[in-house]
Amino acid sequence: MDTGSTAWMLASTALVCLMVPGLALFYGGMVAAKSVLNMIMMTFGAVALVGCIWVVYGFSASFGDSIGGAGLLGDVTEYFGMSGVMKDDPKAVIPLSVFAAFQALFAALTAALICGAISDRIKFGSWMTFTGIWVTLVYLPVAHWVFAFDGKGVVGGWIVNRLGAIDFAGGTAVHINSGAAALAVILVLGKRIGWQKDGGTERPHNLPLVMLGAGLLWFGWFGFNGGSALTSSNAASVVVLNTFVATCSAMLGWLLVEKLRDGHSTSLGAASGAIAGLVAITPSCGAVSPSGALLLGAIGGAVCALAVGLKYRLGYDDSLDVVGIHLVGGITGTLLVGVLGTSEAPNGVDGLLYGGGLSLLGKQAVGAFAVLAYSFAMTWLIAKALDRTMGLRVRPEVEQEGVDAHLHAENAYDLTHVPTTTALTPQPANAG
Amino acid sequence: MDTGSTAWMLASTALVCLMVPGLALFYGGMVAAKSVLNMIMMTFGAVALVGCIWVVYGFSASFGDSIGGAGLLGDVTEYFGMSGVMKDDPKAVIPLSVFAAFQALFAALTAALICGAISDRIKFGSWMTFTGIWVTLVYLPVAHWVFAFDGKGVVGGWIVNRLGAIDFAGGTAVHINSGAAALAVILVLGKRIGWQKDGGTERPHNLPLVMLGAGLLWFGWFGFNGGSALTSSNAASVVVLNTFVATCSAMLGWLLVEKLRDGHSTSLGAASGAIAGLVAITPSCGAVSPSGALLLGAIGGAVCALAVGLKYRLGYDDSLDVVGIHLVGGITGTLLVGVLGTSEAPNGVDGLLYGGGLSLLGKQAVGAFAVLAYSFAMTWLIAKALDRTMGLRVRPEVEQEGVDAHLHAENAYDLTHVPTTTALTPQPANAG
Amino acid sequence: MDTGSTAWMLASTALVCLMVPGLALFYGGMVAAKSVLNMIMMTFGAVALVGCIWVVYGFSASFGDSIGGAGLLGDVTEYFGMSGVMKDDPKAVIPLSVFAAFQALFAALTAALICGAISDRIKFGSWMTFTGIWVTLVYLPVAHWVFAFDGKGVVGGWIVNRLGAIDFAGGTAVHINSGAAALAVILVLGKRIGWQKDGGTERPHNLPLVMLGAGLLWFGWFGFNGGSALTSSNAASVVVLNTFVATCSAMLGWLLVEKLRDGHSTSLGAASGAIAGLVAITPSCGAVSPSGALLLGAIGGAVCALAVGLKYRLGYDDSLDVVGIHLVGGITGTLLVGVLGTSEAPNGVDGLLYGGGLSLLGKQAVGAFAVLAYSFAMTWLIAKALDRTMGLRVRPEVEQEGVDAHLHAENAYDLTHVPTTTALTPQPANAG
Repeated sequence: MDTGSTAWMLASTALVCLMVPGLALFYGGMVAAKSVLNMIMMTFGAVALVGCIWVVYGFSASFGDSIGGAGLLGDVTEYFGMSGVMKDDPKAVIPLSVFAAFQALFAALTAALICGAISDRIKFGSWMTFTGIWVTLVYLPVAHWVFAFDGKGVVGGWIVNRLGAIDFAGGTAVHINSGAAALAVILVLGKRIGWQKDGGTERPHNLPLVMLGAGLLWFGWFGFNGGSALTSSNAASVVVLNTFVATCSAMLGWLLVEKLRDGHSTSLGAASGAIAGLVAITPSCGAVSPSGALLLGAIGGAVCALAVGLKYRLGYDDSLDVVGIHLVGGITGTLLVGVLGTSEAPNGVDGLLYGGGLSLLGKQAVGAFAVLAYSFAMTWLIAKALDRTMGLRVRPEVEQEGVDAHLHAENAYDLTHVPTTTALTPQPANAG
Repeated sequence: MDTGSTAWMLASTALVCLMVPGLALFYGGMVAAKSVLNMIMMTFGAVALVGCIWVVYGFSASFGDSIGGAGLLGDVTEYFGMSGVMKDDPKAVIPLSVFAAFQALFAALTAALICGAISDRIKFGSWMTFTGIWVTLVYLPVAHWVFAFDGKGVVGGWIVNRLGAIDFAGGTAVHINSGAAALAVILVLGKRIGWQKDGGTERPHNLPLVMLGAGLLWFGWFGFNGGSALTSSNAASVVVLNTFVATCSAMLGWLLVEKLRDGHSTSLGAASGAIAGLVAITPSCGAVSPSGALLLGAIGGAVCALAVGLKYRLGYDDSLDVVGIHLVGGITGTLLVGVLGTSEAPNGVDGLLYGGGLSLLGKQAVGAFAVLAYSFAMTWLIAKALDRTMGLRVRPEVEQEGVDAHLHAENAYDLTHVPTTTALTPQPANAG
Repeated sequence: MDTGSTAWMLASTALVCLMVPGLALFYGGMVAAKSVLNMIMMTFGAVALVGCIWVVYGFSASFGDSIGGAGLLGDVTEYFGMSGVMKDDPKAVIPLSVFAAFQALFAALTAALICGAISDRIKFGSWMTFTGIWVTLVYLPVAHWVFAFDGKGVVGGWIVNRLGAIDFAGGTAVHINSGAAALAVILVLGKRIGWQKDGGTERPHNLPLVMLGAGLLWFGWFGFNGGSALTSSNAASVVVLNTFVATCSAMLGWLLVEKLRDGHSTSLGAASGAIAGLVAITPSCGAVSPSGALLLGAIGGAVCALAVGLKYRLGYDDSLDVVGIHLVGGITGTLLVGVLGTSEAPNGVDGLLYGGGLSLLGKQAVGAFAVLAYSFAMTWLIAKALDRTMGLRVRPEVEQEGVDAHLHAENAYDLTHVPTTTALTPQPANAG
């Protein structure tokens, strides 16, 4: 065992877990004050449920030996209950248990990403039910396709092993997957009441919270991408450098689009640009050079800045731009590996710009499309089935008065005790 | 020296330090807007003071050679001023200095935990004085009992070495200790004015802040529990996996109790459930399987969800449920090691369910009771002595008007400049 | 390569990146609600721009071979575009790429520190332009002087190699540098309208946000200081311990000055004290003992608590005390190495108190003064040039109505949907 690589995986697992509150606050700050708690609850609730499922059969379904060697789904009995992961294997570089914990958070976060698209209007119980089914039928197989490497006598997933597409940390399995699912759920669930009309509640209620969330996500993403190297190595180091660089250029890319289009740049744009860059660099972080990452980030930021406007033209209410950022950013990043990938990078293959021809780009497109199509179709069926049975949507008055008070019997803020006087008259030193 | 284990201990120390703002905001969000700063100040102030004491004699008293070999207290002169910890010992797995820093934060956080029970009503100077005395007379010896292992020619504490109870990361020394102390201080200090009556100020003023605090605590806890392995190893990896899993099931456990009892589940419940699960898994994180952690977390979450109601029936004003979560969760987790412990886990012994009989459970009960009784009795005496001399409680008008303005001459929020118009009229691009 | 040291550098890089939102919120909470977003945008914007510059020529200018062996500036062509950093060098302790990422954040944060001095009154475009020029002409050479060690056939900077001053993690290159630059920009830019008069907007609008920011900075600083050891070692461990200890005593030092002077201690004081201690320990964290760190922190906290009052006497509007904390704290810490430094510490030399005479103190003074003078003079010229050409200052009505709405077309908070009723009437369980 390599204690250095294990140390980095332990730290990475913790880092990825901080993305849970990061995402909750990033999303929570963007909704109205009457639905921020529900947004946070959907995030934490999804993570909690997926964490439990992971122990029972999730890890097996994603990382067990492929059923029938087909590369489609892992053997759900292999690590059932996960007791088997505790054994110390001195020959492994890192313990299986830390890999299992790290990947648990990938599953949990991917599911949680979806809720940003459907703020203010879904029943909490239905969301939790949806999450459990979605992870089982969509995430677990897709993670097997993309993340399960062939091993000694073990058959892994088809995208990573048979097709040979490059997806370092989840451009397809995480971002295209959650983005396509979000679009499907939106189409079943419908728009918010008053969307795009006067009296709508679409403005962020707390932008400093959004920036904090984006900052925590950025920080956690170093573990998400860097930990995907599974070693403490030159490969992980290049990933961390590229992840930082792409975020910087993506922020500038988004802010520039805003400035040219609207005449000013916004803090919501800075936060969104950072996330767009992180999404775009996720599949390619080990396959491009720092200059490539700079370019890739800038393209990702600019493309997503334009893509978030699509919902108004096409008329789907993607509340917090999960489609515009995760689906579009994920596709952009996954395809750009085929263009900017370079064999000089630790985990890269030469793409179009480096003389590698169209071969890699083709594989990337097939991988991206396969995940997109499967996720969209399956999710639509799941959402439709739930809508017909337990019902997805809250009653109109619940939506209008606020899901926090109605579904959770709570208000986010109680500012009744905030003093309104501006003058403070401190007591003498012994006042207490 | 093992650089990998050292890297993990360095990271763990940083992680545990993030629990300081985590705890401050978790507590701060739960009080009224007129006392959030005081709550944050009690947390940071306690940490600052304990950090200084630690250098002078704290580390020695906890981790010095047992005075008279009795296992009760370390030699306070051994590392006086801590200059001795700087020497590089190539034979040690990790440097003594990082262990000393890691354990400093355990002491600081345990003291800080107590202040959640006594919000809105204690003088700041009295709290700081209490903290200094409490750490000296209660925490330092108890930490010696539980955390000081016998070494080569060195005698450690009685609970870990003589009794042989399992407490991986502080179910007794941290959680039962702070919870019992909290109960003692509450009994001396009394209830808040208007507690449980109309016009009381018991509702959280900022629930997103509570969720953020819980998220930071969760993240930091990976260092708290995982770093207690003192190595980057399979043992630490299993601990991290179990810590994640137990938190997930504890959240679901708490939310389920709420749903069944009240008809809805709350964000305060999700945050409290997460912390309850983390408390419960702390002593057992190295001794149970992932399935065991799943079960242990669910039990911990459900038990604490019920236990926080006790204060209303018994009539003690445990402001932020330090007793309900840390004392009850600490006892639950410490005892469950004796039931769910398994020798298959890296640091486990077979408990009741694994055919180990009642032996381990008995040891766990003795350890838990010893810490509970000592902490409660000593703390009561300290609080009573301080109340008689310098006085603990603020004057009634200070309590009612708010401790922030009176004790610190500050208000948490100044929203006078928050625009009330909903329309923004951005300037043209060259407006600046 | 040492995987343990690499793991610590990867984690440290992530830690330092969390200082970006940490600083943004620390600063953002301290301004009025009408300019918090602009403050956050200046921080994130500076980091994004410097990150991009770093890839193109920044890393080369700081860490390339000295041009002409003069120790003044690195060869900007050496790592142009940074593709060269990807190569795996098995003989290096850590990969060059992680060092490059770690140092990118030093550059970015140093630039971002400046904006705290000039809140509410600078055009966003001018700030971004200033940042780009400042990093190029001031930070990159100064970082070369202080951080570029001589290597095999490679000549580094004059302060660290020729002069031999001790600056472990940037007392001069980061704190004196940004503090002196802040003072220069303030003098060009002038005071805020209404500064120190009735109706001024100088009170913090959100103190819990300030405490959160301080907490994130504290956490990140373990990476900033600890990562500067470039190894996972006893040296890094002592640094982490000293960093923790000095922060604790600095908080107490600041709070004590407040208590004695004003009769109460404040949360803003606790946050400021923590940062002052961190600034003061930055140059000396590897050169003093834990007791020395305790003393150094207390002095740093007390000195800065007094220094922040200077602006009122001398009449410069240092909005958030960048001069009072970073310049004064940086000088204090840099000079105290010459007094409290000890050869017992892993990276120390005996200072005045340890019988080393005045030699080290003299070197420290020369290093501190050189950076102060260069940074102040160059920054004044840059600011003056920009003021004459594109203009630095926003129009008076923009300043008075708020830079958030005018420059970014956003308001930080929308509390229109915060319910004003105190009674919540939860729906029955099936309400959704």
